[in-house]
Amino acid sequence: MRIDEARDRARELDGADPLADRRGLFDIPEGTLYFDGNSLGPLTHRSRETLTRALEHEWRVRLIRSWNEDWLAMPARIGDAIAPLIGAAPGTVIVCDNTSINLQKALSAAVTLRPGRRTIVVDVDNFPTDIYIAASVAERHGLELVAVPADEMVSRIGPDTAVVTATHVDYRSARILDAATITAAAHAAGALMVWDLAHTAGAVPIDLAGLDADFAVGCGYKYLNGGPGAPAFIYAAPRHLDVASHPLQGWWGHAEPFAFEVDYRPAPGIARFLTGTANVLSMKALEGALEAFAGLSMDAVRAKSTALTGLFVDLAEEHLVPRGFRLASPREAALRGSHVALGHPGGRALVDTLATRDVIADFRPPDLLRFGFSALYNRFSDVVALVDLLAESP
Amino acid sequence: MRIDEARDRARELDGADPLADRRGLFDIPEGTLYFDGNSLGPLTHRSRETLTRALEHEWRVRLIRSWNEDWLAMPARIGDAIAPLIGAAPGTVIVCDNTSINLQKALSAAVTLRPGRRTIVVDVDNFPTDIYIAASVAERHGLELVAVPADEMVSRIGPDTAVVTATHVDYRSARILDAATITAAAHAAGALMVWDLAHTAGAVPIDLAGLDADFAVGCGYKYLNGGPGAPAFIYAAPRHLDVASHPLQGWWGHAEPFAFEVDYRPAPGIARFLTGTANVLSMKALEGALEAFAGLSMDAVRAKSTALTGLFVDLAEEHLVPRGFRLASPREAALRGSHVALGHPGGRALVDTLATRDVIADFRPPDLLRFGFSALYNRFSDVVALVDLLAESP
Repeated sequence: MRIDEARDRARELDGADPLADRRGLFDIPEGTLYFDGNSLGPLTHRSRETLTRALEHEWRVRLIRSWNEDWLAMPARIGDAIAPLIGAAPGTVIVCDNTSINLQKALSAAVTLRPGRRTIVVDVDNFPTDIYIAASVAERHGLELVAVPADEMVSRIGPDTAVVTATHVDYRSARILDAATITAAAHAAGALMVWDLAHTAGAVPIDLAGLDADFAVGCGYKYLNGGPGAPAFIYAAPRHLDVASHPLQGWWGHAEPFAFEVDYRPAPGIARFLTGTANVLSMKALEGALEAFAGLSMDAVRAKSTALTGLFVDLAEEHLVPRGFRLASPREAALRGSHVALGHPGGRALVDTLATRDVIADFRPPDLLRFGFSALYNRFSDVVALVDLLAESP
Repeated sequence: MRIDEARDRARELDGADPLADRRGLFDIPEGTLYFDGNSLGPLTHRSRETLTRALEHEWRVRLIRSWNEDWLAMPARIGDAIAPLIGAAPGTVIVCDNTSINLQKALSAAVTLRPGRRTIVVDVDNFPTDIYIAASVAERHGLELVAVPADEMVSRIGPDTAVVTATHVDYRSARILDAATITAAAHAAGALMVWDLAHTAGAVPIDLAGLDADFAVGCGYKYLNGGPGAPAFIYAAPRHLDVASHPLQGWWGHAEPFAFEVDYRPAPGIARFLTGTANVLSMKALEGALEAFAGLSMDAVRAKSTALTGLFVDLAEEHLVPRGFRLASPREAALRGSHVALGHPGGRALVDTLATRDVIADFRPPDLLRFGFSALYNRFSDVVALVDLLAESP
């Protein structure tokens, strides 16, 4: 398909897109082509509104009274807004801290529930912070960290495995791991499964309840569009809610924080994963952003996402691979998350050059250009414009 | 002094107050009398401006580019803005996470630096989250937690003590602990000292460098006015900066986060206490708020603070104690932080009633009304108005 043909085709696809109206919820600057929602989702009008209200009314006017009027309920309320996006039941997700810290809590809780076992199995291509945190938990519990390629994980799970952990969608290649098979293998060995949904939540369907996953964590600032450094979330299966423990036992996770008791008594349910005071302003932006998912099924999000990445992959193979680019994401749509990585020896310079023209992607070593496509605001015509620019670039 | 005389006296004091102009930096609603800066500082105009710029320019327009243009430098830059308020050298303070999490890092680092010792000594009247976290660290390192009243701490420090930790200013009584004596006692025994400065930073001078304290943590949303759930800070003495380790080893604390290495290598210096992605929006509000301290010495802040609390204590003894109130803070100014607690059997209802009239204080069990006085925005006339209201209330 020539670029001009692709342009026509994109126009048709945009015209027929059932999610097209969602783009109006975002405040993307005129002239900017944004392909980095896998790293930082753009501003929504509702984020601005909720944050402004938090500033001008809740903080400025109501001051400390807002804790009882709104803020104390926020982490659980926003968790419940995320829950349907990841196949979780109400009351099993809570928003707090960052993903690294939540992973520390989840892994600590998991290994504590499997005393006597000796290993944590982790995907060696996982996002590095996950490996660092897994190494830390392993060291502190006297366990061995088994870091192996994703395809070897299942074969390394055994009767000594306490916990298996991986990121569902690879941060470089966007490859989707087989969550059902890996979770089942962990459970068959009596181990627990902890999923990182950083590149999943808001982009790729997952059914945590159906998978029977034990714990999960994820990020608020990528496809959930919660703003820079938005708080993260943590999920625990209902069976673990009232028995899980972790080392970050702060007052917000106490059964009665405002009783100011000397002894720690964990809150019943998912609230025991809270630590200290919630960063209200960041949470408010996230809460507003989540409204962009109202009434949407994750299947509809996924259908558009695969259509966007599919069009990009098709055009990239035709127009970019002959110019020195390499497809570094799965060719098969079912295995591909919501971004596409292309390898190119001049990748970093290319990303920088695009950014000076307000075409925004990101770079990951050694040579990967990453292009994120969000079903909520990216258009098929954006995809064609991007390929056109890349075809001219190097 | 009769109330009408006090009113005249307050007018004089306000007229002569060298810090009077700082109140104009805050956006306190007309008609609100605010005595809860010890729990949540009010909004500054600069917080609104920095947050609005973060929203409208950094997030909306620059998007992911803002990480390199500004955000990556934020935690250290804001830490350096806090450093002079707590007697710390540049490069020894960093802003991140919440106080509970930072205390976990500080205590973990401290006990790891004192292997073979067997106890953590903690003030049993410390803010509960500090005790919960100390208990968690003790349990995970096989140590005994020695939780004793502040006055017994020094006598319980011995050759088996790994770490001593306390909050410098008591969250209920506002009593200031003798930081020099306790720190020296810890050091004399070969133990490390970890201070919680939640009710100190921005209100009471402390000289961390002069004390030779080992670690400190503190809160961004009280007297630093950083906004609800503002990020906290952590301090490490220069001698520990390049050797300290803690279990929350996330990618932001890595020597080269964007090299995405599989092995964790802690950053040199204070940056090793970072965990995951900074909550940018909350940090921006804090950064703006800190400008209210520009050009102020903590001695000037302290002088006005003790004058405010001193006037309140004097008037309370004359007008409120005869009506059933009890002074629950030190009578002696040198021992008193920047809030004053009064006991009253109907304390909780009284605080609630005041709040309906936009006179804002808070309540701490069992019967304490807490009134915070900030040198940056509270006026002497506010103090008199408060006593007048309380004298009518019960």
